[in-house]
Amino acid sequence: MALYVHKYGGTSVGNVERIRHVADRILHARDGGDQLVVVVSAMSGETNRLVSMANELQDRPDPREMDVLLSTGEQVTIALLCMALQQRGCPACSYTGGQVRILTDAAHTKARILDIDTERMQADLAQGRVVVVAGFQGVTGEGDITTLGRGGSDTTAVALAAALKADECLIYTDVDGVYTTDPRVEPRARRLDRITFEEMLELASQGSRVLQIRSVEFAGKYNVPLRVLSSFTEGHGTLISYEEEENVEKPLISGIAFNRDEAKLTILGVPDRPGNAYKILGPIAEANIEVDMIVQNVAADATTDFTFTVHRAEYKKALDILSRLRDDLGAREVTSDDTIVKVSLVGVGMRSHAGVASQMFAALARESINIQMISTSEIKISVVVNEKYLELAVRTLHDAFKLDQA
Amino acid sequence: MALYVHKYGGTSVGNVERIRHVADRILHARDGGDQLVVVVSAMSGETNRLVSMANELQDRPDPREMDVLLSTGEQVTIALLCMALQQRGCPACSYTGGQVRILTDAAHTKARILDIDTERMQADLAQGRVVVVAGFQGVTGEGDITTLGRGGSDTTAVALAAALKADECLIYTDVDGVYTTDPRVEPRARRLDRITFEEMLELASQGSRVLQIRSVEFAGKYNVPLRVLSSFTEGHGTLISYEEEENVEKPLISGIAFNRDEAKLTILGVPDRPGNAYKILGPIAEANIEVDMIVQNVAADATTDFTFTVHRAEYKKALDILSRLRDDLGAREVTSDDTIVKVSLVGVGMRSHAGVASQMFAALARESINIQMISTSEIKISVVVNEKYLELAVRTLHDAFKLDQA
Repeated sequence: MALYVHKYGGTSVGNVERIRHVADRILHARDGGDQLVVVVSAMSGETNRLVSMANELQDRPDPREMDVLLSTGEQVTIALLCMALQQRGCPACSYTGGQVRILTDAAHTKARILDIDTERMQADLAQGRVVVVAGFQGVTGEGDITTLGRGGSDTTAVALAAALKADECLIYTDVDGVYTTDPRVEPRARRLDRITFEEMLELASQGSRVLQIRSVEFAGKYNVPLRVLSSFTEGHGTLISYEEEENVEKPLISGIAFNRDEAKLTILGVPDRPGNAYKILGPIAEANIEVDMIVQNVAADATTDFTFTVHRAEYKKALDILSRLRDDLGAREVTSDDTIVKVSLVGVGMRSHAGVASQMFAALARESINIQMISTSEIKISVVVNEKYLELAVRTLHDAFKLDQA
Repeated sequence: MALYVHKYGGTSVGNVERIRHVADRILHARDGGDQLVVVVSAMSGETNRLVSMANELQDRPDPREMDVLLSTGEQVTIALLCMALQQRGCPACSYTGGQVRILTDAAHTKARILDIDTERMQADLAQGRVVVVAGFQGVTGEGDITTLGRGGSDTTAVALAAALKADECLIYTDVDGVYTTDPRVEPRARRLDRITFEEMLELASQGSRVLQIRSVEFAGKYNVPLRVLSSFTEGHGTLISYEEEENVEKPLISGIAFNRDEAKLTILGVPDRPGNAYKILGPIAEANIEVDMIVQNVAADATTDFTFTVHRAEYKKALDILSRLRDDLGAREVTSDDTIVKVSLVGVGMRSHAGVASQMFAALARESINIQMISTSEIKISVVVNEKYLELAVRTLHDAFKLDQA
């Protein structure tokens, strides 16, 4: 007998009809005799409805009260899903985050899970009940309600799977798995059967929004096999786990991620002195601007050119700061460009294979796509190109690395 | 410095605009330097919305899950009201029933309060905060969410007032107090400044739905002065408390209640033997039919006529049971009438004044209103009449006892 954690997002439980559908799916999954813990989000639209009332009443809604308010969304879903299960003759019992004691810190609206008490869930499972838990929420040691922030229901599911030592955590969503790249850009994109935690983390941080980064990190840390699959269609989805045994041949490249919302800033001719990188990025960080890629080259004249990318929404703010810094640093010039995108190749296979980068650059060159920046990690190569090349670059690389073939 | 408990019903917090209005009212009440605990219901319409989803999913929604579902209604309101108060610079903190540990038994959907932990509320009040508590809900010793059933928010307010030893419990609603009778029937009906717990109980049980019976009982038991007043208009409402000092002259009659939804059943010619009343009412009680008035007369031929009234919705069910019982009991006949109403005079003053009943019957006789049944208690006289006489009977009695005059 295996133990599985299922998680259904807001779209999957968006109305009474869909909740019935989820109940059917759970019953089907339970037919094999396995134990099930189910984590659900708020019905889609509900969170927005609550947030808009809060915004009408307080300029900056109090985080503690916001958590009291928003946590009702999942609480409604757990009760409704249990009713649907019971109607089908399936014993089920609901719990809020506070009731199963998902203990968190007190960082309201972005709390972190500290501990989970599994006693009551284990007792229910032993009695043959399906345990339905509200995602996204927890409780502090003082009994205050907290929420985990965006994508928090995924984190709840993974944390429960880790605490219960579940065999697998299945994340049901509106896509049927992780793809080699976005099928809207490359119609020949292929669903991956398996992918490693590291690859998933890179894909997620590079713009593939199937799973929230935090839940993937959590799953990796506690070695919880994660499966992403659709709650609307059949299929096995994509399994995210640690690398398979060494004798299995790994694919060179798993997928291509991209990010449309980048902007690039360069400060040219900075005298090459220690501490300059900090002098540039310190004020940027203080302004709460998140920096993505950073590239620095030393020029022949003992000055350096320093380039970094930021989210396009923070481009103007970053440019203002850089312009003010120019004289202090004795730099020559500030240039910038908010018409760039980032395209990344991701794959654990590139660890043990040389030549992936050159193969990538050759493919882009054949299409005359100019590469403005390059950044690499052990399992990822990212390039910055002009936004007009995004689709062409993705398709070219998808083809060059034969990602449409299993 | 006094401590007050305010309670605002669903209509009073029905939308964001009204929640703002309640916040203004609380601020005004707090200007005098008093401490405030505020109990709120779900926004009007919210409970119905949730119930209808539950009914779509389960034929008889599970009581435990129903409580999980419905308790979200008040939880939304407490958060929104705290936001509105904080926006006005008033420190406020919200609590669900579980968080202030309104401990109840496990009778889901109709739980009874066993204990309240006031420690956290006292600490907040000492810090100058307004404490906002979700009405209608509690928690069992095992941590399961419970609700108190209809009118439960009133009960929460009274229970908190008792536990905190509050100076007064103010129930804000959509009427501005308790009236001598329903102003829609008798336009000269007058708002009462004061009324006793006993009178309020009789009025409530006789159809005056300003307050739920349970909350009045609770207030009487713990001697919590209750005030009913409007959240939409100014005014002092009606204070419900124990009798004033003996030297204050009590009004003979406080008010006239009536109940339109009655039906009458009679079983005629039952042999007058011990245990027959139980043989008749036992099966009625087993069918969960609530019996209101019961009247029994012994006839000259050693048989008895047994009459009782039930809610009109249960008339047919009760009639079926009686018809089946007739032969077993050796009774002669079953008669019934579902076109009756009950009209009651209520007043603690009638305890010490003879002749109220005869004055009542004389007034009705002058208008040729036939009395079908009579039932009396120490502070109440009820008569059953044909429904066509309801308005005439109420106005006649209102006039006969000069209730329009203070």
